[in-house]
Amino acid sequence: MKNSEIFFGKDIISLDQFNRKSVEKVFATAAKIKKTPTKKLLKILPGKIVGLMFFEPSTRTFSSNSAAVKRLGGQTVEYQNPLSTSSVVKGETIEDTTKMMEQYCDAIVMRHPIVGTLKKVAEVADVPVINAGDGIGEHPTQALLDMFTVFEKFKHIDNIKGLIVGDLLNGRTVHSIIKCLSIFPNNTLYLLSPKQLRLSNKDLEEAKKRKIKLIEIKSFEEIPADCHFWYWTRVQKERFTDKQEYEKLKLNFILTKKLVDKKAGKNTLIMHPLPRVGEVETEVDNDPRAVYLTTEAKNGMYVRMALFSLILEDRK
Amino acid sequence: MKNSEIFFGKDIISLDQFNRKSVEKVFATAAKIKKTPTKKLLKILPGKIVGLMFFEPSTRTFSSNSAAVKRLGGQTVEYQNPLSTSSVVKGETIEDTTKMMEQYCDAIVMRHPIVGTLKKVAEVADVPVINAGDGIGEHPTQALLDMFTVFEKFKHIDNIKGLIVGDLLNGRTVHSIIKCLSIFPNNTLYLLSPKQLRLSNKDLEEAKKRKIKLIEIKSFEEIPADCHFWYWTRVQKERFTDKQEYEKLKLNFILTKKLVDKKAGKNTLIMHPLPRVGEVETEVDNDPRAVYLTTEAKNGMYVRMALFSLILEDRK
Amino acid sequence: MKNSEIFFGKDIISLDQFNRKSVEKVFATAAKIKKTPTKKLLKILPGKIVGLMFFEPSTRTFSSNSAAVKRLGGQTVEYQNPLSTSSVVKGETIEDTTKMMEQYCDAIVMRHPIVGTLKKVAEVADVPVINAGDGIGEHPTQALLDMFTVFEKFKHIDNIKGLIVGDLLNGRTVHSIIKCLSIFPNNTLYLLSPKQLRLSNKDLEEAKKRKIKLIEIKSFEEIPADCHFWYWTRVQKERFTDKQEYEKLKLNFILTKKLVDKKAGKNTLIMHPLPRVGEVETEVDNDPRAVYLTTEAKNGMYVRMALFSLILEDRK
Repeated sequence: MKNSEIFFGKDIISLDQFNRKSVEKVFATAAKIKKTPTKKLLKILPGKIVGLMFFEPSTRTFSSNSAAVKRLGGQTVEYQNPLSTSSVVKGETIEDTTKMMEQYCDAIVMRHPIVGTLKKVAEVADVPVINAGDGIGEHPTQALLDMFTVFEKFKHIDNIKGLIVGDLLNGRTVHSIIKCLSIFPNNTLYLLSPKQLRLSNKDLEEAKKRKIKLIEIKSFEEIPADCHFWYWTRVQKERFTDKQEYEKLKLNFILTKKLVDKKAGKNTLIMHPLPRVGEVETEVDNDPRAVYLTTEAKNGMYVRMALFSLILEDRK
Repeated sequence: MKNSEIFFGKDIISLDQFNRKSVEKVFATAAKIKKTPTKKLLKILPGKIVGLMFFEPSTRTFSSNSAAVKRLGGQTVEYQNPLSTSSVVKGETIEDTTKMMEQYCDAIVMRHPIVGTLKKVAEVADVPVINAGDGIGEHPTQALLDMFTVFEKFKHIDNIKGLIVGDLLNGRTVHSIIKCLSIFPNNTLYLLSPKQLRLSNKDLEEAKKRKIKLIEIKSFEEIPADCHFWYWTRVQKERFTDKQEYEKLKLNFILTKKLVDKKAGKNTLIMHPLPRVGEVETEVDNDPRAVYLTTEAKNGMYVRMALFSLILEDRK
Repeated sequence: MKNSEIFFGKDIISLDQFNRKSVEKVFATAAKIKKTPTKKLLKILPGKIVGLMFFEPSTRTFSSNSAAVKRLGGQTVEYQNPLSTSSVVKGETIEDTTKMMEQYCDAIVMRHPIVGTLKKVAEVADVPVINAGDGIGEHPTQALLDMFTVFEKFKHIDNIKGLIVGDLLNGRTVHSIIKCLSIFPNNTLYLLSPKQLRLSNKDLEEAKKRKIKLIEIKSFEEIPADCHFWYWTRVQKERFTDKQEYEKLKLNFILTKKLVDKKAGKNTLIMHPLPRVGEVETEVDNDPRAVYLTTEAKNGMYVRMALFSLILEDRK
């Protein structure tokens, strides 16, 4: 069996589908595509059409998918926010809308506000479906691009020590990253969040079964030396009933140049899924270890190119 | 005269433009394109740009046109709902907006809420214009794709016996289908609708001149055996002043598995232009005769590819 | 130094960047592209992606840019009005949004409602940025396409006598045209506007330094014979506190067939950036000298193609 057969024609709905071999295949493909000349890439998906169905606002995920398809020589059929402007208005079910799209397209990328929609959609669709985020569910391609960024830097994705800061309760990317790192041995994640936004007990229990080591810490003081990566996320104001509590806590979790100088290692990657709204000071942007505005974002495109290529490329 | 000259550089505004020869040309071209390898299709419209101007919500017609152009190697310039987001806001006339678009594009596909707009637009435009639906006027490409689906199955489009159910008064597709079938000899359509939504006397009179046989029936009991196709449409709630009357009638016109088992022939195509909002039970979807979610929708793309190819392809 | 090196990898933010040599290069490139066969053009930008970020409604500039990229074989990633539908909603800064886009794209075209935004964006971006209009600031590509239209007709862009009518105070295109004509010797512009919408004293002073001759006139009577071009713009109702005054003045500045017959020269180009809302009568449209709906609009695409080609084309 060729490696590409792991993916050809398959859906990407959750990180639960992945094992060591398939994650490594995605990373190897992304790395290869990143080095391939522009014009050669155009020969990978000529004549393929990917439907981008975004039922929720998104610029980052939408545009990196759009660019990824086009850089491979494919084309897109695009919807943004059709909940208010399309057949959905006329009362069509998501299943019917999906069946319609798949008549025209070779694959579908969908973002939807309701958890579980993508699983349902993948069941009815005959073409491959890629989950671009469903509510507070999963966002598997974001986790893959983040962990690819770590892998690309350190050349391994086991024996990693990482720090995740912010909203661990609701952050779908955080959940997907924990799953991804659980696939590989000897990984440790330090978790720092307001107590209202700690990882749920259920998620903690599940992680134990997976054998990833999760260590909750309470302050910047406890951040260990030499993390491979720091992963900052937004502390979501709307989750707090006590706004003063929010304002107080928020200040405790702002990433500053001072903190980087004090606690980050020489090679620590400083990451964030973006958009940010104040929790990472712009003074950090030019630190060579900060990759959120550059490599991490760009890898979003390359990892998606890897997935499209693995799922859709004809191999004679 | 080569057949392609019937279409090259021409508008598609109404089925009134079509005769036996031109409909057969569209069908033959669609059938041929359907069998052509993906990469070969890309050589048909390289460098051609089609403007998709949709002044009314649409996902189905919009995306099948977008995919059709791109599968032929062409490109699109796309607007959705620009009535609220564009130059139209600044008070520009539809004629000026069209003249602008044609400077950038090789053809224009337009949907507009007002009947007759497409005729007006085609008059001012120097590039070919395709009507993608103007209010309750016509929707010629929908009728062509529906009748192509019948032709593809039975290999003829004369001596056809069809059933149309639902809103015959306002359904623009229904009007276009009647015109299309009138072009060929010995066709019979059985019409079933609430009495408020019967075909208008004017339309019935006109059909008589065209020599298509229209037979109005009053209930499912009267559906004849061995129809070539059943064509279901939405009964539009908004047309009824008496909502109880609507609810009662609606129930009489729901397509169920039971009805299919009882009244459909072995080869009867079960069709619907979609979206549906309850008038076709999902239990019918997996019946092999049901083509609304599959072949019929897919043929929408192929018939549009046929038209773009006939209208735009350079032939040296 | 090859001429193309003037532009390769550069931003286009203001006409202040241009000199005689660079304007002539744009015009020569646009003229050459206009004569190049469609399929050959596709070889200029294959594999290049241009991000179109329009934070303000636009159909004309948006679609001419979209078509320009695609006619050169490139692809676009497109946003329209993301101020209400995207990461911007989540509170992201324009700098972060730009940094994100440039990870996926080879260049960015942006329209933004706030003056000066494009300059700021170009400073943070590592890919070339093209200003597609920032508030009442500049709209350099519009001025270039307009002056290319004059150049194409008369084969020179010095010794030109032009007339500009309408809102000279707020019209960003007018300001850019004055700058463009100032680059070449012996140009004269006659300016006609309601006194509330006269060119500001600051702009008049600046023009003096630039050595373009500006002559304010007060009525149609004073329009000189044999202008090379007439450039009409919209008198903006919203600038007037006295609406009666507006209505009165507006009537004084409507371009009619009668005025063309009386005052235009045999070769005078009749121009308008569009959209128009009544200030140019449709009776003028078919006059062979009227180019606003045809050549002028089409040149918008060709000048943008020229700029994309100069900025982005790989030259081995």
